[in-house]
Amino acid sequence: MSKGKVCLAYSGGLDTSTILGWLLEQGYEVVCFLADVGQDEDWEAVKAKAVQIGATKMIIEDLRKEFVDELCFRAVQCNAIYEGRYLLGTSLARPVIARAQMRVAEQEGCDFVSHGCTGKGNDQVRFELAFYTINPDIKVIAPWRDPVFFKRFAGRNDLLDFAAEKGIPVTSTKAKPYSMDANMAHCSYEAGMLEDPDQTPPEDMWTMTDDPETAPSKPEDIHIFFEKGIPTKLQTLVDGKTYTESVELFNKLNAIGKLHGIGRIDIVENRFIGLKSRGCYDSPAMTILRLAHLDLEGLVLDGQLRSIRDTFVTQKWSELLYNGMYFSPEREWLDTCLIAAQDRVNGVVRLRCYKGNAYVLGRSSETEKLYDADIASMDTLDNFSPEDTTGFIGITSIRLKKYGLQKRAEGGLINSK
Amino acid sequence: MSKGKVCLAYSGGLDTSTILGWLLEQGYEVVCFLADVGQDEDWEAVKAKAVQIGATKMIIEDLRKEFVDELCFRAVQCNAIYEGRYLLGTSLARPVIARAQMRVAEQEGCDFVSHGCTGKGNDQVRFELAFYTINPDIKVIAPWRDPVFFKRFAGRNDLLDFAAEKGIPVTSTKAKPYSMDANMAHCSYEAGMLEDPDQTPPEDMWTMTDDPETAPSKPEDIHIFFEKGIPTKLQTLVDGKTYTESVELFNKLNAIGKLHGIGRIDIVENRFIGLKSRGCYDSPAMTILRLAHLDLEGLVLDGQLRSIRDTFVTQKWSELLYNGMYFSPEREWLDTCLIAAQDRVNGVVRLRCYKGNAYVLGRSSETEKLYDADIASMDTLDNFSPEDTTGFIGITSIRLKKYGLQKRAEGGLINSK
Amino acid sequence: MSKGKVCLAYSGGLDTSTILGWLLEQGYEVVCFLADVGQDEDWEAVKAKAVQIGATKMIIEDLRKEFVDELCFRAVQCNAIYEGRYLLGTSLARPVIARAQMRVAEQEGCDFVSHGCTGKGNDQVRFELAFYTINPDIKVIAPWRDPVFFKRFAGRNDLLDFAAEKGIPVTSTKAKPYSMDANMAHCSYEAGMLEDPDQTPPEDMWTMTDDPETAPSKPEDIHIFFEKGIPTKLQTLVDGKTYTESVELFNKLNAIGKLHGIGRIDIVENRFIGLKSRGCYDSPAMTILRLAHLDLEGLVLDGQLRSIRDTFVTQKWSELLYNGMYFSPEREWLDTCLIAAQDRVNGVVRLRCYKGNAYVLGRSSETEKLYDADIASMDTLDNFSPEDTTGFIGITSIRLKKYGLQKRAEGGLINSK
Amino acid sequence: MSKGKVCLAYSGGLDTSTILGWLLEQGYEVVCFLADVGQDEDWEAVKAKAVQIGATKMIIEDLRKEFVDELCFRAVQCNAIYEGRYLLGTSLARPVIARAQMRVAEQEGCDFVSHGCTGKGNDQVRFELAFYTINPDIKVIAPWRDPVFFKRFAGRNDLLDFAAEKGIPVTSTKAKPYSMDANMAHCSYEAGMLEDPDQTPPEDMWTMTDDPETAPSKPEDIHIFFEKGIPTKLQTLVDGKTYTESVELFNKLNAIGKLHGIGRIDIVENRFIGLKSRGCYDSPAMTILRLAHLDLEGLVLDGQLRSIRDTFVTQKWSELLYNGMYFSPEREWLDTCLIAAQDRVNGVVRLRCYKGNAYVLGRSSETEKLYDADIASMDTLDNFSPEDTTGFIGITSIRLKKYGLQKRAEGGLINSK
Repeated sequence: MSKGKVCLAYSGGLDTSTILGWLLEQGYEVVCFLADVGQDEDWEAVKAKAVQIGATKMIIEDLRKEFVDELCFRAVQCNAIYEGRYLLGTSLARPVIARAQMRVAEQEGCDFVSHGCTGKGNDQVRFELAFYTINPDIKVIAPWRDPVFFKRFAGRNDLLDFAAEKGIPVTSTKAKPYSMDANMAHCSYEAGMLEDPDQTPPEDMWTMTDDPETAPSKPEDIHIFFEKGIPTKLQTLVDGKTYTESVELFNKLNAIGKLHGIGRIDIVENRFIGLKSRGCYDSPAMTILRLAHLDLEGLVLDGQLRSIRDTFVTQKWSELLYNGMYFSPEREWLDTCLIAAQDRVNGVVRLRCYKGNAYVLGRSSETEKLYDADIASMDTLDNFSPEDTTGFIGITSIRLKKYGLQKRAEGGLINSK
Repeated sequence: MSKGKVCLAYSGGLDTSTILGWLLEQGYEVVCFLADVGQDEDWEAVKAKAVQIGATKMIIEDLRKEFVDELCFRAVQCNAIYEGRYLLGTSLARPVIARAQMRVAEQEGCDFVSHGCTGKGNDQVRFELAFYTINPDIKVIAPWRDPVFFKRFAGRNDLLDFAAEKGIPVTSTKAKPYSMDANMAHCSYEAGMLEDPDQTPPEDMWTMTDDPETAPSKPEDIHIFFEKGIPTKLQTLVDGKTYTESVELFNKLNAIGKLHGIGRIDIVENRFIGLKSRGCYDSPAMTILRLAHLDLEGLVLDGQLRSIRDTFVTQKWSELLYNGMYFSPEREWLDTCLIAAQDRVNGVVRLRCYKGNAYVLGRSSETEKLYDADIASMDTLDNFSPEDTTGFIGITSIRLKKYGLQKRAEGGLINSK
Repeated sequence: MSKGKVCLAYSGGLDTSTILGWLLEQGYEVVCFLADVGQDEDWEAVKAKAVQIGATKMIIEDLRKEFVDELCFRAVQCNAIYEGRYLLGTSLARPVIARAQMRVAEQEGCDFVSHGCTGKGNDQVRFELAFYTINPDIKVIAPWRDPVFFKRFAGRNDLLDFAAEKGIPVTSTKAKPYSMDANMAHCSYEAGMLEDPDQTPPEDMWTMTDDPETAPSKPEDIHIFFEKGIPTKLQTLVDGKTYTESVELFNKLNAIGKLHGIGRIDIVENRFIGLKSRGCYDSPAMTILRLAHLDLEGLVLDGQLRSIRDTFVTQKWSELLYNGMYFSPEREWLDTCLIAAQDRVNGVVRLRCYKGNAYVLGRSSETEKLYDADIASMDTLDNFSPEDTTGFIGITSIRLKKYGLQKRAEGGLINSK
Repeated sequence: MSKGKVCLAYSGGLDTSTILGWLLEQGYEVVCFLADVGQDEDWEAVKAKAVQIGATKMIIEDLRKEFVDELCFRAVQCNAIYEGRYLLGTSLARPVIARAQMRVAEQEGCDFVSHGCTGKGNDQVRFELAFYTINPDIKVIAPWRDPVFFKRFAGRNDLLDFAAEKGIPVTSTKAKPYSMDANMAHCSYEAGMLEDPDQTPPEDMWTMTDDPETAPSKPEDIHIFFEKGIPTKLQTLVDGKTYTESVELFNKLNAIGKLHGIGRIDIVENRFIGLKSRGCYDSPAMTILRLAHLDLEGLVLDGQLRSIRDTFVTQKWSELLYNGMYFSPEREWLDTCLIAAQDRVNGVVRLRCYKGNAYVLGRSSETEKLYDADIASMDTLDNFSPEDTTGFIGITSIRLKKYGLQKRAEGGLINSK
């Protein structure tokens, strides 16, 4: 008799193929699930392999649009960034994948969900917190944290032996000296040789960006239009084309960014579970969009609102996403806050892409009026009383003069340290 | 009889020369002051001109070391950045200049200080808040906010007429279509043609960075060493030289960054007085140092400490500097906080400079041990119990499950929006 | 010919009566305006006096409902408090008064608005920022900042002389040794004898709270019901009455709080313009409502959401209100944020009022389920795996152990300082 | 042969006596440890009982001074408070207890430490995070999370049976319908009947505060002196005595607060592990000290410094303490920050204690000068230019006018909602 039905996140690789075989061996019925979040994949081959190994079904869902619309563009609105550098590509994909897996689990009547994440990473936390929040009664099978499993499969050879025994096909591709995970937002590279933080990644590692050194020596100009902080149109100047559908726009930006080598980062980051780890990421579209959005906000967003939003929403939202807290009351609330701050973020940013960088060439907005060249102009005093500034400085200095007197009694501020 | 003695910030340009002439005409005695914060200047010519116009004295002080040591390197420790993009070059220079001017005013027995800042900018605020804090009794003469002055000198021609009348020498150089201000940290460009935020700056505007498009096609590698977050050594790989004296190190980084076109930004920013303005800045050394420091912190700084520091010190310190609050109790306090957070920021970052960008190649630290390749490794479970993560997720999900149940009663989290 | 029409905030007191007379003398036509925000006033007498002095009209508006609904209850939702102690009574009233005065100015075709605020206080800033934001073209006459006015009326005797000269009736009441300002939210007391921060206020100063020492020795219990963080019902246990209309509910709470002496504070605070000043305030209803709301949030609000909201919305909103920034993009935005955080704040809090204090007796919610006595119970392990906590602690300690090892190399954490 | 040596936190109660017996039964050698943090205890009886049951040793340490000096007074400097209400009494005691237990474990050569905390509470986390940070190699035995133990001792009767079997003496005292934990900072009450958050605690529950309703009807005045934010002297007006030794000062304040019924709170709070729980606490000395300190800061601390400190340090430090992160890099760092903000907190606060409340009567400082009655005075314009405020308002409104125009295009700010 079956121990129950499991919905397994299945990628077709050696790890999840082994897990599939092992779950079947343990007496579970298994429905496999694979999310299309824009990665390169031979979908039919994965499907065939799952069924060959013994899955009852293999369900593949195209989540690209919800990934871009709900997660990536929200991150753009937020200027989301983790520890000042990481654009959160993996973190953004996990919620849509976990939600879709739970939808499949529900449709297929599964009592269990399972995944192939390791026991030391962020992803297990992101997936499982999402699973439990979406359905507090779901049961999770995490083989890489189950001693029965991880002691049996202690090394790659054990996996290969099991594959041979069970007739699981193994692609002969030599394993890379690091692990990769790709979606539309980025490709990540970690572990293996990258665990030495002083080891420069090999040039052939990067998949979503070409080498800046070999990128075209001719720059390429583009225009990105935003409505309420959401990218709504991309114009490529080289051929005068426009892209308005979100997935197409995003893919086109990825292509442009790839060509010009834009969006590589290599960092040591702090995982939610308290370990430091080294990660490399290339995120062409996200890098360009974040820059353009940040730039437009300079033109159209009130400075005080921006400062408060920067301090509180931007960093917190980014940390929540990184830590797997997408399905949480605080993230839901912060989304409301950040969307409400974007009403005025309407306009267009002109950019130049060239050898590893995007540069802003200019920005404008037809609807927003906070920038006022007349009043800001150094060449005129119309609508401005310079005497007011004297009063402003006078009042602002009241408090500081008291401090100055205090310091004077201690020797003063006049000498350098 | 003299109305009193004024210490005037004098640059030798048309504006401050007119102010000098005008102050003398008004019956003041004037001591001129000029700070050397690394800008390009014909110091002797400025001196001669001041005296020729009628200044009692012209005092020039070399502030480069205190500028780099006290301000620029503190900004590096802080990862300081304003509105996500601006590295604060002007804001960092103002405190050391204002302090030195007040020292001169005190030594020379001046009751007044004066400057040529416009009435709409940030600099007037920065200078005067510093003046008043350092000496609450000082009197400030700000001609560009005095109707007697600004109505008389309503345009450039009025200034030229006055110069002719007073025999003030005017350099025949055609005025640039924007204004510039340079120091070691950056050169700023604003006003004039740049007041249209959609107008791309002319390529020949930039002075501290060469055009990335014509920068060398051969990358250049460097190593930057930090102790307690302060850059203490620069190694240039191309010739094996090292730089340890702070001003030399900083200048060398500026030279490398200039050659490779690193550190240009073009933004619309929010001035303290509530106006939006467009500014362009090139900051080669600061751009490279900020990146290197940020990277090293990933390796050596505790993640929670970093998150708290990022939220509160980094942005606030940057805003205080931008707003001219260097001499304030809150900045003094935040300095204590940020320095205390840097004890562990010891190590070296290897970088590659290439066509507009610096890329991190690797980082290491001999003394710091928070990064632990063994425990972080995906290849081993030594010193790690994967079962612990199950408990961690279980406990972390308690709160989220409650939220999930709440949402379930409203239709659930399972569908995309 | 008239210099134009002024809408003057007129209270009937000596100051604004003098301003009224002076404006007329200067050649303005004056429409007087007085807001009813719940203060004790002989409205007809004020009206008669304004007209007698020469006002074209005297318009009195009852703003109590918009004051309570829009400002006071929003402050309750926010747990608003300034510098940890002040419940913002004056700050909350200013926006509704300023807005109504601008409505009247618009209806009456006034080009000017005027007020009797002093030049050192917060109120001038609050009123005028509101005026200018609501109508950037409005002209403000602030006599106490106009040297023509303040030099002529340098002391109380000058005001009395002017009153005698102009036939302005003066109430013979002896001036209090401090100034007062009352509305439904509180009465404020400052200046005069209170300027010595070590001078205890006289017991007969307080008007909205009876002396706790002579308050009833019998406590009084009440129930306050909230929907989405808004007080919607007050039940008084002593007589079984209920109050649901917002102004009535608020007034009744003021009456109960007055009787039991609840809500007095005496502080030194930091004014927006950088001066420290001493203020005393009694705010019975607001004190009770803030406590009840804070308590209910403990029961129904998610802890993480609350922590983020506390850090960023509560303090910032309070500071914005204090500084007169009610009509600002950032306050408008924070309102959206804080309201969005209140969806779940539904329930009832039972309180006891007694001699200066309100005590919470208990709280409950029919709709909210985050509090779960079963899972929280120390008496059962149903639905809880204590082993999970071991894992939670294990993972949480990973980072801390690294820190411990670091400290150990420096002598360890084991000894007290 | 012994399984090893355990240092057990032993209180003499039924739970830890059972744990002691059980550990011995399991084959461990046990050294008992009890911290004196000011609770009421028959120390000799506990000692005798431990030895009688079979402990090798029973070590009692007086930690009162390090508790008050290092933890309680730091909390006062910080104005520490959790979720706006809880003064952290338990959280403050845990670090000193855990550290002392680890000192004993080291001195006695123990490989293990053990405690009687339940598996659902905060204390297990606080203790164990401290243990692991102080010595990453320590092994922790937490019987209430060990199924072998908690399944065997599923109810109170199982404990009593075991006691009978092992000859463990049981005090015949009827168990209270809630659990209590006391130290100098407070007594906490939770669980049992208190798990219903709408159940008012019985009046005889409170141990550290007398009932305000029966408290003296005569108020009592005291003076508290601070140096750098630390209470250094207490003067009791009734008898003219002074207390300067920290533990005596603290105890005296507890006595005064007890008499007048000051410092009771009853809340629902969010535990670190994500559960909501109801807790009641009475903290007389801490309540009075926090009020006095907060008040003095109004007089002597710069307003901007205070605002930044309030936003970031106060709440974060409180949350860290609550969550058991005392021994962490971020708490160590925040301590440096908060101490640096206290240099100017010197002065005296005069308070009146009466029936459940402390009221501030006045405050003064001989050394601090930020409060300036002259410049703040409403009665004089010496040293103040009211015209400056006009300029201040003018500049401050630039940004707001832009917003007003934007809103005007949407219907304006003039109408109430």
